[in-house]
Amino acid sequence: MESSIIGFSRGDASAKTFKAFNPANNASIDVNYAMASEDEVNDACLLASNAAFEMAQFSGNKKAEFLNALADGIDGIVEDLVSVMTTETGLPEPRVRAETGRTSGQLRMFARLVEAGHWVDARIDRAQPDRQPLPKPDLRAMLRPIGPVAVFCASNFPLAFSVAGGDSASAWAAGCPVIVKAHHAHPGTALLVGNEVVATLRKCSWPEGAFSLLFGEGRTVGQSLVTNKMIKAVGFTGSRSGGRALFNLANAREEPIPVFAEMSSVNPVFILPGMKLEDIDSFSTGLAGSATLGVGQFCTNPGIVFHPAGEFGEQIKTSYVQKMKKVGAGVMLHRGICDLYHKGIQKLTSCEGVKVEYRFSDSVEGEGSKAGPCVLSTSVNEFLADSAMMDEVFGPSTLLVAYDDLAQLIRVVSTMEGQLTASVFGVETDLKNDQGLVDHLEIIAGRILFNQFPTGVEVCESVVHGGPYPATTDGRSTSVGTGAILRFARPVCYQGFPEEWLPDELKEGNPLEIERCES
Amino acid sequence: MESSIIGFSRGDASAKTFKAFNPANNASIDVNYAMASEDEVNDACLLASNAAFEMAQFSGNKKAEFLNALADGIDGIVEDLVSVMTTETGLPEPRVRAETGRTSGQLRMFARLVEAGHWVDARIDRAQPDRQPLPKPDLRAMLRPIGPVAVFCASNFPLAFSVAGGDSASAWAAGCPVIVKAHHAHPGTALLVGNEVVATLRKCSWPEGAFSLLFGEGRTVGQSLVTNKMIKAVGFTGSRSGGRALFNLANAREEPIPVFAEMSSVNPVFILPGMKLEDIDSFSTGLAGSATLGVGQFCTNPGIVFHPAGEFGEQIKTSYVQKMKKVGAGVMLHRGICDLYHKGIQKLTSCEGVKVEYRFSDSVEGEGSKAGPCVLSTSVNEFLADSAMMDEVFGPSTLLVAYDDLAQLIRVVSTMEGQLTASVFGVETDLKNDQGLVDHLEIIAGRILFNQFPTGVEVCESVVHGGPYPATTDGRSTSVGTGAILRFARPVCYQGFPEEWLPDELKEGNPLEIERCES
Repeated sequence: MESSIIGFSRGDASAKTFKAFNPANNASIDVNYAMASEDEVNDACLLASNAAFEMAQFSGNKKAEFLNALADGIDGIVEDLVSVMTTETGLPEPRVRAETGRTSGQLRMFARLVEAGHWVDARIDRAQPDRQPLPKPDLRAMLRPIGPVAVFCASNFPLAFSVAGGDSASAWAAGCPVIVKAHHAHPGTALLVGNEVVATLRKCSWPEGAFSLLFGEGRTVGQSLVTNKMIKAVGFTGSRSGGRALFNLANAREEPIPVFAEMSSVNPVFILPGMKLEDIDSFSTGLAGSATLGVGQFCTNPGIVFHPAGEFGEQIKTSYVQKMKKVGAGVMLHRGICDLYHKGIQKLTSCEGVKVEYRFSDSVEGEGSKAGPCVLSTSVNEFLADSAMMDEVFGPSTLLVAYDDLAQLIRVVSTMEGQLTASVFGVETDLKNDQGLVDHLEIIAGRILFNQFPTGVEVCESVVHGGPYPATTDGRSTSVGTGAILRFARPVCYQGFPEEWLPDELKEGNPLEIERCES
Repeated sequence: MESSIIGFSRGDASAKTFKAFNPANNASIDVNYAMASEDEVNDACLLASNAAFEMAQFSGNKKAEFLNALADGIDGIVEDLVSVMTTETGLPEPRVRAETGRTSGQLRMFARLVEAGHWVDARIDRAQPDRQPLPKPDLRAMLRPIGPVAVFCASNFPLAFSVAGGDSASAWAAGCPVIVKAHHAHPGTALLVGNEVVATLRKCSWPEGAFSLLFGEGRTVGQSLVTNKMIKAVGFTGSRSGGRALFNLANAREEPIPVFAEMSSVNPVFILPGMKLEDIDSFSTGLAGSATLGVGQFCTNPGIVFHPAGEFGEQIKTSYVQKMKKVGAGVMLHRGICDLYHKGIQKLTSCEGVKVEYRFSDSVEGEGSKAGPCVLSTSVNEFLADSAMMDEVFGPSTLLVAYDDLAQLIRVVSTMEGQLTASVFGVETDLKNDQGLVDHLEIIAGRILFNQFPTGVEVCESVVHGGPYPATTDGRSTSVGTGAILRFARPVCYQGFPEEWLPDELKEGNPLEIERCES
């Protein structure tokens, strides 16, 4: 039996256990995982709270050393990951290798960020003892770690948004201890990475409470974690209902804490009138690739496409169905996701005015948690009449919506919920004649794209993977890219402190040579 | 009868009205204010939502023009403000003049900030079409306005945190429309400033919905405002119960929105063992000034002071009581605050082990909403035994707590709630031998001070007026200083857009010549 990692120790065996499943055949995998007990959650939180003080004093270099070592460590276990993760998730080997690279790449990106050091937004107002009518005191401010962070593994990113994924990497980079709740669908993958984290912490002489890994099925363990007084922030990627439940719990605490939940997005695509007939084929190819990438299990999967009605629209529809027919079925991450996908399609097809253009044969879908692509169509007026069509269907399905004029699109966007992305396709003059469409999109989306598809999120300084609710529970944040570190930091101002005592970032001589705002 | 300002129009007369009171004699002031109706709230929100699109396109210069003009306008009505505000609030004329200056000064500070333009955190990742294995797209991100903001006037800052105060100024600077809920205790002051805002908006050709001012007594109008779908963020300064109620409402919405409520802080002061006997007198003078400034009605009022026990502590106590005896009674802002002050003292004195060292004569306190200073004392062990002593008493009272060793202080801080400020007094070697006290303070406070008192908040780049709950509902924010603008902005990423279409902040040639993060 495998148990949770509590600091540098392992938790107890437990009467309550669960197993993971191989979604390719829905057979259980023969390892028992012990559910973390209430005591284990408390122990992990207490260790984290103590570690927070030590970690708050870590220099950027000390943090970078750990993040780089962990990146190397994770790259070093890629063969083990391939073996365990393909079985637990149905994801193919190349994806496991690519996601391993993204995970170690993210850790190295945050290492570079904290080594460079300017992320702390250092601000310095020097004293003016002779100012009239009152002297100005010396004030210096910078971002400091928020405290222990609870991170929930994402079902669709078993590495890049799980144990040592983007949430954990950005929290460690900020100087925060991390307690991870493993996803019940890939505990073995979590354990492999978790063991690597512990080994790296020891190697880098980090305190024990900088990391714990909790196993659990259902919501009990996660709820104990989020309601623990020691926890100061939450990172989550998953379903709308799951994220909202955590958000509600965190806000009902006596001391509410921020929840950065990335949840739900249909990532609308708008084909503007300027798109040329000869571009239809490459557009359809690109859209089919984006919509079925990873069996459609990406947060930025383009679920709804608005296209001009009439002959042009019919050609798009025909072309797209043709491309989607070429895509086979794939194994989804777990039975729950697969069931929800089929229910989502069923719900959409039962909406008034929705027509099935293509659906992958049901019989093949019966094998394990397999699912295939689906193309549905409707008109913008039917779409506006039934808000159910706006709901995310997580999987490789696309709803094509025919519109007559831009005013209809503006109406659509005005009633649309928050989105991670919104994509616009057309020619440059379309942007000039869009009657404010892109301005409206900016209000609801975190990232807007021109002639590009939303999947394949670039991990960099400028990316925003966020957006108004329900894309996330905090539209002022991003969970991908260097900006993600800002979620786990808060500004602290030091007034009148002697030079010697000040953090290096704020010292008079600027020993770290970072960019600062000074006056 | 005076009614609400809805865009450029005035609201309807109403059957439901209220009056303000002169706290100097608790007599009502003979102007009726009409409660804003549900329809008026909706109209204001709809106007704001429409204005948001236009305002989102405003350049920094356009916003600065308005903020500067409004600053001039407010300076220009200072005589009217003196007359109305002294009557409504009991605040003396010099304070009204000073707060007018702070208010116009804040507006000008935000004007300079948006003119300079770098606050948008522009980030540029240029395309790398030849990158292997995949080309890198062009991504550019910057902060964009969050949308219409609801601002609640603060009872204790009728100008600097009311109609055109810090919350409104930072929201306008970010490009957000503002709907202000006037405080029931100073509606006349609100109306004077509100009329100036409308005149300035017209002069600067800003859209109608950029501002509305709602009158109301009780919580109905505020609740309608915060639950309106068009509102995207809330700024509030006031009581813990009021702020938490708004926070709960905002988070229970189908689309939750951020609430930046600044609420409650006892602003602990720690006298470390190194303070010299000869410094006691100046310390006591400073503390008495800070604790009774504005009749103790500042958020940063130092309410609890920890001092070494024994002879040294006795001398501090004696000296402080002597200073406080010289401070007379003052008129508090309104009867409600005055009643709560007396109840707060009563609650403290009924705690086991609390001794009254000095209390201003009750008889004088009976005139209007007058209140005088109060000094209480206890020991750190009694303090730790009763959490009621940690509660804020809003007014000119101080609780002196004698401690024996630093370990006790660490225990105190470990159980303390979030604070706006924490001040440490002593000599520099105290900081070296503090056994981690300041590190612990940093965890709970937004601003930590050395040998300085927390009142007299400097408005600048580096100040942090915020802190963990219940100091605020969002410890990652500040409501004073330039950083306040970040509350009302969210990052948006533009991927693959043509140069011509991009906002100036992100254009290739950097026409605004702002600092950017580029790669």
